[in-house]
Amino acid sequence: MYRTHTCGELRLADKGAKTTLAGWVQTVRKFGAITFVDLRDRYGITQLLFGEELNKQLEENPPGREFVLQAAGTVNERSNKNPNIPTGDIEILVSSFTILSKSSVPPFTIQDDTDGGDDLRMKYRYLDLRRNEVKKNLELRYAVNRAARSYLHGQNFIEVETPYLIKSTPEGARDFVVPSRMNPGQFYALPQSPQTFKQLLMISGYDRYYQIVKCFRDEDLRADRQPEFTQIDCEMAFVEQEDVLNMFEGMVKHIFKEVKGIEYNEAVPRMTWEDAMWNYGNDKPDIRFDMKVTNLVFSKQMFPNKSTVLPEEMFAIPPWGGGGAEAVLAIAVPGCADYTRKQTDELTEWVKRPQIGMKGLVFIKCNTGGSYKSSVDKFYSEDKLKTIAEAAGTKAGDLVLILAGPEERTRKAISELRLEMAERLDLRKKDEFKPVWVLDFPLFEYDEEGNRWVARHHPFTAPKPSQIETMISNNPAIENTAEYVKHPYANIKANAYDMVLNGNEIGGGSIRIYQRELQEKMFAALGMDKEEQQHKFGFLLGAFEYGAPPHGGIAFGFDRLCAILGGSESIRDFIAFPKNNAVRDMMLDAPSTIDEKQLEELQIKLDLRG
Amino acid sequence: MYRTHTCGELRLADKGAKTTLAGWVQTVRKFGAITFVDLRDRYGITQLLFGEELNKQLEENPPGREFVLQAAGTVNERSNKNPNIPTGDIEILVSSFTILSKSSVPPFTIQDDTDGGDDLRMKYRYLDLRRNEVKKNLELRYAVNRAARSYLHGQNFIEVETPYLIKSTPEGARDFVVPSRMNPGQFYALPQSPQTFKQLLMISGYDRYYQIVKCFRDEDLRADRQPEFTQIDCEMAFVEQEDVLNMFEGMVKHIFKEVKGIEYNEAVPRMTWEDAMWNYGNDKPDIRFDMKVTNLVFSKQMFPNKSTVLPEEMFAIPPWGGGGAEAVLAIAVPGCADYTRKQTDELTEWVKRPQIGMKGLVFIKCNTGGSYKSSVDKFYSEDKLKTIAEAAGTKAGDLVLILAGPEERTRKAISELRLEMAERLDLRKKDEFKPVWVLDFPLFEYDEEGNRWVARHHPFTAPKPSQIETMISNNPAIENTAEYVKHPYANIKANAYDMVLNGNEIGGGSIRIYQRELQEKMFAALGMDKEEQQHKFGFLLGAFEYGAPPHGGIAFGFDRLCAILGGSESIRDFIAFPKNNAVRDMMLDAPSTIDEKQLEELQIKLDLRG
Repeated sequence: MYRTHTCGELRLADKGAKTTLAGWVQTVRKFGAITFVDLRDRYGITQLLFGEELNKQLEENPPGREFVLQAAGTVNERSNKNPNIPTGDIEILVSSFTILSKSSVPPFTIQDDTDGGDDLRMKYRYLDLRRNEVKKNLELRYAVNRAARSYLHGQNFIEVETPYLIKSTPEGARDFVVPSRMNPGQFYALPQSPQTFKQLLMISGYDRYYQIVKCFRDEDLRADRQPEFTQIDCEMAFVEQEDVLNMFEGMVKHIFKEVKGIEYNEAVPRMTWEDAMWNYGNDKPDIRFDMKVTNLVFSKQMFPNKSTVLPEEMFAIPPWGGGGAEAVLAIAVPGCADYTRKQTDELTEWVKRPQIGMKGLVFIKCNTGGSYKSSVDKFYSEDKLKTIAEAAGTKAGDLVLILAGPEERTRKAISELRLEMAERLDLRKKDEFKPVWVLDFPLFEYDEEGNRWVARHHPFTAPKPSQIETMISNNPAIENTAEYVKHPYANIKANAYDMVLNGNEIGGGSIRIYQRELQEKMFAALGMDKEEQQHKFGFLLGAFEYGAPPHGGIAFGFDRLCAILGGSESIRDFIAFPKNNAVRDMMLDAPSTIDEKQLEELQIKLDLRG
Repeated sequence: MYRTHTCGELRLADKGAKTTLAGWVQTVRKFGAITFVDLRDRYGITQLLFGEELNKQLEENPPGREFVLQAAGTVNERSNKNPNIPTGDIEILVSSFTILSKSSVPPFTIQDDTDGGDDLRMKYRYLDLRRNEVKKNLELRYAVNRAARSYLHGQNFIEVETPYLIKSTPEGARDFVVPSRMNPGQFYALPQSPQTFKQLLMISGYDRYYQIVKCFRDEDLRADRQPEFTQIDCEMAFVEQEDVLNMFEGMVKHIFKEVKGIEYNEAVPRMTWEDAMWNYGNDKPDIRFDMKVTNLVFSKQMFPNKSTVLPEEMFAIPPWGGGGAEAVLAIAVPGCADYTRKQTDELTEWVKRPQIGMKGLVFIKCNTGGSYKSSVDKFYSEDKLKTIAEAAGTKAGDLVLILAGPEERTRKAISELRLEMAERLDLRKKDEFKPVWVLDFPLFEYDEEGNRWVARHHPFTAPKPSQIETMISNNPAIENTAEYVKHPYANIKANAYDMVLNGNEIGGGSIRIYQRELQEKMFAALGMDKEEQQHKFGFLLGAFEYGAPPHGGIAFGFDRLCAILGGSESIRDFIAFPKNNAVRDMMLDAPSTIDEKQLEELQIKLDLRG
């Protein structure tokens, strides 16, 4: 061993002890005849003191930033203590040292606030990983991994490894495929998830399965997605939705406790998908703050059971498009009535950006004095403004922001605006964790292009037990495309659930279909004929013939969960060797061309289009 | 939840309790008006008793083998107890039941001794996994996983996930490659191991890394190999060989204790590669039994420092090819002097099989009476036979078996024969675990075809510290191919180590090169020019420029380790969803053809050779 102690270990109690340390040179400071070196390793920083007698040797072999140094000496009390680090009371009086390895000047500083840009840090990821910020993230990731394992093990789950070279059955996202040399013309696929395997394990009787496992999706460029990502993948047999929810909110609470020291003992709130869309404009509501959406006008098709708070005619005037917009949605932003013209103009520009896509923004200031001021003063009396503002649940001092337009776009926009305003008001606290279950999703979405149903979650999700009959006894074909919402399938709710944390979906799952007839009906609804069903999922349909237990499960996005627990929105910071947005590993320079010989052996050829 | 208890849980103490169980029907036995059903789940088997009053319902819905049944009732003391199972004192007096799922007749019996052949069991792997034998293997695998993790965590190792989509840099085995849709014409490779990543993590300062991780090798057909396999992959910084050996024999002992309840407290024995070849004929000796090889004649080139026990002229006679064989190697098999002619003939046929490839077998029987009888009586007097037998370390009653031929083949053959005889004598006990470190491997092997050196372990393994200078100061080019053994590189020993358990290599590793100059020399010795070095490993050479610490590590073959601990020679039994010898998943029917559209998107074409 090149060391007797780590650089984070020695204290005043060790005074006088002989020690040998090894690590990286963080800084070198010369004061006349003596030299101080801060030596860094995974565990901390210890100050080395080189006395006059080592001067000659230091001059011959001057250690520089990021050199790897081995130093032997005695633990000494520091005259000038540093209370900011645990080793700050001591220093090592060096008696001898060896430079184990030299370093060129790093392309960026190895410090918490680095001067390195993203590309540089990705290329020299091995240096970026030395920074304390990044190290903390990977340590947190490991802690979450351990906490999840210890909880699941305690609950009698068993980890079973499922294969990586499987069969290509693309549904939704594209598969990465792997040409087989031994079976020319055939390909394996990398798993998008171990979904069918974990279901087979339930059929095999393993009853509580988990795996922390890499999954792969060949998707187009999307910010903060990675082609390979990690899931905490779980499945249980002989359970209903309630059992799965209880089990896995237990896991999340355990992780909160173990990793963040947070005691979260109450039940995780639950919300239907419809209520999430109604109150927050999306299905992954950030409930760290309130600021719920007020539905002034909305699509009756989407919310047949909801009613308006104000007469709809109030909004059939020019600001809302004259004849009335499909949706008019408001939020009341607390304490912002004093926004200046410049600020409201800026917000207007913000909602008009292509990513948001609104035509404009209407506001009502609920002044603390009790008066109302609005961008649509000329269409509404102050009384009417007050009526609208009160409908939006304002208090004096609030700023009501109102968007109008087509239902889907407007709802998405008000949701974005809500998050943006919360961000500006610092209501999205990084150290506050508010999970919520979102339930009762629609089982199907309608795909206009293909005039067919697509599975909102995936084709293995069961409908609510009460709706199985509806699903089996109706023909999935949509005859009148304009009125697809009237098809009985449009109203089938899934036995599915998402766990949302601070506005991010961190986990999703469902109770699964375990009856062959129902699974075949599902595949048929998705436009798969018998032959395709057999080719892609014959093994699963076959397995249902031999005693399949009722089962369900969930998968957590491990990278995302770690990022949120680490107070970051970017998963890339929590992955040791991530790929960039062009799906490249900048450090390896991968993907890359391969040898002609490799292609020949695989019996494939490039077929490049221009 | 469909159950209140599992099928392995209830005891006599629960007598009178209400319970609901769910599981699979193992057997149905009717006795007049009552019916017994053995219900099975992951935890055990519980007997259900259906009384007369349920007869009608049973007749309407008769449960069959492997049906999934839910049964509610009361815990009852059995009149006819079964001491062989933990639940054998009780039965459930069923009050109501539901068939959750029916089953067709399984294609083979779900029992410890199944009637299913390999192919059938692979195709219906989800049924095979129900068998107790297979379940036990997966449970053991999980236990080994947990024991390894707990040990490594306790030693301050951190798990870091490394990427699966990396760069193709084939060395030795072939890479599986993955075409990149986003970067047409370019490919990722699946990792053969995370070798370079774990070295980068050391350079990043993570200092103790582990990962239980899938690796991939596109190899030709070999028995009991899988294209994807699992490693316990580890690396440490600031260590020398001794540190790594101590750390990881600690891990193996911990696994022995946790998984098998075995207290193995002594030091794991160590053996040089040369001694392993000398005494056992191969570099993964099974030391559960002795029966060492006696080197009567051997290649001086391979063992320049060893001397014969008998004058070599004794073997320059017809039985050894007249002029003398390159190697004459013997083992003394205890207690087999009374082998019949039929038995020695059969052994002779055994060594003549193509897999062994010997021309014949010579034996000497050391009869208990003190006489000697041999297949080469006419060439040797009884005195000489005695001399040879004594040289082979025999006791009265032993059978000396002698093979002669070319060094490499004969050594391999005597090693195989040694294992075979041990097998016949039941000396390879499945419940005895004898690890041994094999050390001091040659760094290079000579590749005749390419007239170049190949790395015996891998190109990142360091030579012994004392031989670094030899390596750097000599030109690797081999001028006189016939005398390659005289090249200084032929004598360089690697700073590498294998852990061998019961005749199987379960782990291997090395101290790594961490100096750019030495690494470049190594790449050059393997025939890689500067450009290729830069293209394939530029990132690693670059990383060595920024302060690389001395480091080393090891990787354990997780599948193999589990198999041996489970008393099996086949890793396939310890993998949930293995592939067959044609690298196919029989259950999924993968690999398979993919859609033309997928090929188009990837911009590749098939290029099948007839």
